[in-house]
Amino acid sequence: MADSIESVTPRLLEFRHQREWEQFHLPKELATAISIEASELQEIFLWRERETASMIKTDMHRMELIRDEVADILIYLIFLSNDLGIDLPQALIDKLEKNAQKYPKEEYRGRYREP
Amino acid sequence: MADSIESVTPRLLEFRHQREWEQFHLPKELATAISIEASELQEIFLWRERETASMIKTDMHRMELIRDEVADILIYLIFLSNDLGIDLPQALIDKLEKNAQKYPKEEYRGRYREP
Amino acid sequence: MADSIESVTPRLLEFRHQREWEQFHLPKELATAISIEASELQEIFLWRERETASMIKTDMHRMELIRDEVADILIYLIFLSNDLGIDLPQALIDKLEKNAQKYPKEEYRGRYREP
Amino acid sequence: MADSIESVTPRLLEFRHQREWEQFHLPKELATAISIEASELQEIFLWRERETASMIKTDMHRMELIRDEVADILIYLIFLSNDLGIDLPQALIDKLEKNAQKYPKEEYRGRYREP
Repeated sequence: MADSIESVTPRLLEFRHQREWEQFHLPKELATAISIEASELQEIFLWRERETASMIKTDMHRMELIRDEVADILIYLIFLSNDLGIDLPQALIDKLEKNAQKYPKEEYRGRYREP
Repeated sequence: MADSIESVTPRLLEFRHQREWEQFHLPKELATAISIEASELQEIFLWRERETASMIKTDMHRMELIRDEVADILIYLIFLSNDLGIDLPQALIDKLEKNAQKYPKEEYRGRYREP
Repeated sequence: MADSIESVTPRLLEFRHQREWEQFHLPKELATAISIEASELQEIFLWRERETASMIKTDMHRMELIRDEVADILIYLIFLSNDLGIDLPQALIDKLEKNAQKYPKEEYRGRYREP
Repeated sequence: MADSIESVTPRLLEFRHQREWEQFHLPKELATAISIEASELQEIFLWRERETASMIKTDMHRMELIRDEVADILIYLIFLSNDLGIDLPQALIDKLEKNAQKYPKEEYRGRYREP
């Protein structure tokens, strides 16, 4: 059991280190890996009609596929952030503040585009 | 200051709720959003020669762009995981175990492909 | 006016040559460029309800955006194929034959996945 | 043998029609399919050192993988353009003219970014 993403990070870094994969993990390569995993995630939903979260949650097989792809994306995101010294919680907070300015809640309630 | 990704999640969900954006956030759409943000991350590295993490870290302008895209990817990943009931730390641990079986450290040391 | 994609290829190559951009166009970079443009194409459809082709065709503004992204993807595809000596019409025919074997019409009529 | 991409289009449309796949091919889905195939193309180059086109051309196995992915991308691009009434050769020419204005050859010779 793990109680936070951060508590898993040392195990991810150790996994990588044991395989000496740091040499492959240039930031550009990690960005590409994230994009490839994100496409694999998309593929699980391709050609399918409008599915809500609750519909998908009943499909154990696809839920496991989704879970694996989500983990893959997050693993590469953690490697990239580690290597570039990005503090993920702080990056989230800073982006949230930018977004709050960019999308004032009054104007963007129920819409994604400019009124 | 935030000490964990999880501690930011309630603020992300509140931001979304205030704008009533849950209606747009079908899992398939969130997967697409992750993929689009991942491409924007890749774009920061496009057409550039081999750059190491330490080279990139000296470029404050690009570091900010990277930080923003990394946050965007993580935000959508957190929304998707929240909506589908995926426990991210546990998903990481499970995937790490699968990877440890798939890539035994003796065989994959210094290589990404089968020996 | 142009009557075929192939008839435009020399002009694309000349455009590239005048700017001496061949030096940036390693196959890997071109593959990344295709993926980035494909994400920009996806972005035009993000967060939107089920839209048919005829609905989209009435929206001149978005049609122009789509047209531009489609052209960008095709331009990089032509550069990549040119550089690697891939005959695009022949590649299409060969893939069509593989697909005809992989997806027999009787079994896959009206379905995308195995029966 | 085919002498142009356009001459293969009717066979692609027939392949699709025999399987009644038009129902799945909303423009948004086709855009996603292009993006997924583009990521599969990228995967062929992942974790690899700087490879020139001539290096890759000697690797028959990877060349076949590349050829297949390039064809997949082009197939979905042709479907999308067909469905939306986009004239691909003309879209190429129009985009080339926009690019010629955006990237004057004197300023962008040997550089991809603003001087």
